[in-house]
Amino acid sequence: MRWIGIDPGLRTTGFGVIDVDGQKLTYVASGTIESGDPAKGLPERLGTLYAGVKEVLETYLPEAAAIEEVFLNVNPRSTLMLGQARGAVIAALVSENLSVAEYSALRVKQSIVGTGRATKPQVQEMVKRLLRLSRAPGTDAADALGVAICAAHHAQVPKVTTTVLASKKRSRSLS
Amino acid sequence: MRWIGIDPGLRTTGFGVIDVDGQKLTYVASGTIESGDPAKGLPERLGTLYAGVKEVLETYLPEAAAIEEVFLNVNPRSTLMLGQARGAVIAALVSENLSVAEYSALRVKQSIVGTGRATKPQVQEMVKRLLRLSRAPGTDAADALGVAICAAHHAQVPKVTTTVLASKKRSRSLS
Repeated sequence: MRWIGIDPGLRTTGFGVIDVDGQKLTYVASGTIESGDPAKGLPERLGTLYAGVKEVLETYLPEAAAIEEVFLNVNPRSTLMLGQARGAVIAALVSENLSVAEYSALRVKQSIVGTGRATKPQVQEMVKRLLRLSRAPGTDAADALGVAICAAHHAQVPKVTTTVLASKKRSRSLS
Repeated sequence: MRWIGIDPGLRTTGFGVIDVDGQKLTYVASGTIESGDPAKGLPERLGTLYAGVKEVLETYLPEAAAIEEVFLNVNPRSTLMLGQARGAVIAALVSENLSVAEYSALRVKQSIVGTGRATKPQVQEMVKRLLRLSRAPGTDAADALGVAICAAHHAQVPKVTTTVLASKKRSRSLS
């Protein structure tokens, strides 16, 4: 199963692609998409993010996607900008028929480092170790790989449980 | 020149399509796109908005787009939700290679009714008159048609000026 993780941002959106086979995680690719000159209009910058994500999807063909939930910035204008970037990125993901799981930064850190209070360098270091990389990825790419790893962990047990419950419910309502 | 105007919202996004020939405005279509059951996840709802806008674009083939700027809600969570909806809608527009102009609700009201303090029924009534409709469109569709009309008005003089200035600058830097 190939996962893409996304750490959305208006200026820089991080992405990370991993292959998951049982407990085994294999690094595929990671990097950042830049929306370019802030002097350009917002629609053009969102278009650059959208096209960048589409290109990554067409290159690495992930089968599922996970994206970091955004926190509410103290500055409402920043919240609005980040929201729009996240909306454009999710549009790119769903336009390729990917299901999109959402995880908070807290859950990602708990899943990767073991504590929600983990620092960025700690996340980078653990991502490096878990994927057996020769050096730590940049912060945005590490966060994105972290989301992918978190999603891969969570998708294993709970998804099966949900399916079982759903089919039980369905058969009950049919009887 | 065919314009599409958009009034973005997570629950309901309004759209309005008009043809502009000099001062003459002709109504083409308008309506709303619903993101569906709020119990569905946000990515799925954004996907519904994105697909809905794409369908409208493929049906009516507008040549330019204009979208209402969103105001900062007092509730930061609402701002974030609205931002994501707007990002997904803009992604759909730019994915069809449309340039996207942005207008504040204030400018739209000034352009349509003559005052930024215009009420929603006043906007609906003026949109009905300007487009010679037999009855007023719903509020979301009227707002979207208002954005399209505002964009058509503003696009006439200023766009030419910008082009002239840009080509002057270019020739200066080449000499």
